[in-house]
Amino acid sequence: MFKLYGFAVSNYYNMVKLALLEKGLRFEEVTFYPTQTPEALAISPRGKVPVLGAGPGYINETSVILEYLEQTGQGAPLLPADPFERAQALALAKEIELYIELPGRACYGEAFFGATVPEAIKEKTKAELLLGFAALGRHGKFAPYVAGDSLSVADLYFLYSVPLACAVGQKLFGVDLLAQMPKAKALLEQLEANPHVQKIAADKEAAMPAFLAMIAAKK
Amino acid sequence: MFKLYGFAVSNYYNMVKLALLEKGLRFEEVTFYPTQTPEALAISPRGKVPVLGAGPGYINETSVILEYLEQTGQGAPLLPADPFERAQALALAKEIELYIELPGRACYGEAFFGATVPEAIKEKTKAELLLGFAALGRHGKFAPYVAGDSLSVADLYFLYSVPLACAVGQKLFGVDLLAQMPKAKALLEQLEANPHVQKIAADKEAAMPAFLAMIAAKK
Repeated sequence: MFKLYGFAVSNYYNMVKLALLEKGLRFEEVTFYPTQTPEALAISPRGKVPVLGAGPGYINETSVILEYLEQTGQGAPLLPADPFERAQALALAKEIELYIELPGRACYGEAFFGATVPEAIKEKTKAELLLGFAALGRHGKFAPYVAGDSLSVADLYFLYSVPLACAVGQKLFGVDLLAQMPKAKALLEQLEANPHVQKIAADKEAAMPAFLAMIAAKK
Repeated sequence: MFKLYGFAVSNYYNMVKLALLEKGLRFEEVTFYPTQTPEALAISPRGKVPVLGAGPGYINETSVILEYLEQTGQGAPLLPADPFERAQALALAKEIELYIELPGRACYGEAFFGATVPEAIKEKTKAELLLGFAALGRHGKFAPYVAGDSLSVADLYFLYSVPLACAVGQKLFGVDLLAQMPKAKALLEQLEANPHVQKIAADKEAAMPAFLAMIAAKK
């Protein structure tokens, strides 16, 4: 049985959790907050979440965990079998991570946690998000899923990164980043009706007080 | 035959070029600079390099191209066959990209091209690079390669990202980021003696004047 290390408020954690649920694989959740203690760094080299406890040891980095699950061939596939189509799904996932999640994340502190982000970083985020969403509109198929007619790892990134980046766009820049992408909005609604996604959302809500207490203790 | 779109000064381009050379695959190089023209965006959704022209179309994002080449099974493998060991090599590559290449890249303008990077961004880069190199020291095997006893995709990221980040560390912060990692320094020397790496370095040198002229024309 797999062990999933992380916490239910983390969007990266929830990408892997949804993959495990959709694949129908058994796993145990182990609460683990990002930190730089020696114990944490022995499990996660950069002290980040999520980490997957698999038979021989630990696997870190969301994209790597997701592909490891594919590579082992257990459960429902979340990548096309054809190498070229597989690459398109992985490229979409990577584009969402590099050009939407990461610039958005640089402003999470101000958008969600009452911190102040320097103006230079906000300007960079805004410019990158506009280009990132344009790329998603160009490459995404939304037929109805991001990479085509079935759920893939690209949808995991889409579901758990795009709404946060949209909240950054709205709160910090007054921009609706999905304004020109009605099919993307429809896909978000469809995904949010998925029972596994609803369970993950309920778990996130239940975990929020402990997470906020952890953040407050760090300040 | 593959087509490799990009330019010989790009470190991401050179990662894929080295993979193709090490695998012994035939490919044609097509000069392509990052841009947001409709023609470029039809090949590369975010206008970035490299892009691989493969039979059925285009594949973007370095990490995705590298795995596509593995997935097709042509040429010498650059990932272990065992899924867990494969995941460790991919995690190391991802860690170098997220925690070394990307923070370093935010300061390339000042380190290499005479631009000025805002102080807030430089501070963030410095903090992230220190943590990123610590993670590499913790997770990297350097036995003698980054992920173990054979060359893998982790070495491609290592060879083409770490020296640039080290130059940022030295020029902007006066720090030797590899000071505590003699095995990493030895691996860089070993890799730089590889004939394919030397060919790529010579091609980079030859392409530099055109690249600098392109940058100057943009200003």
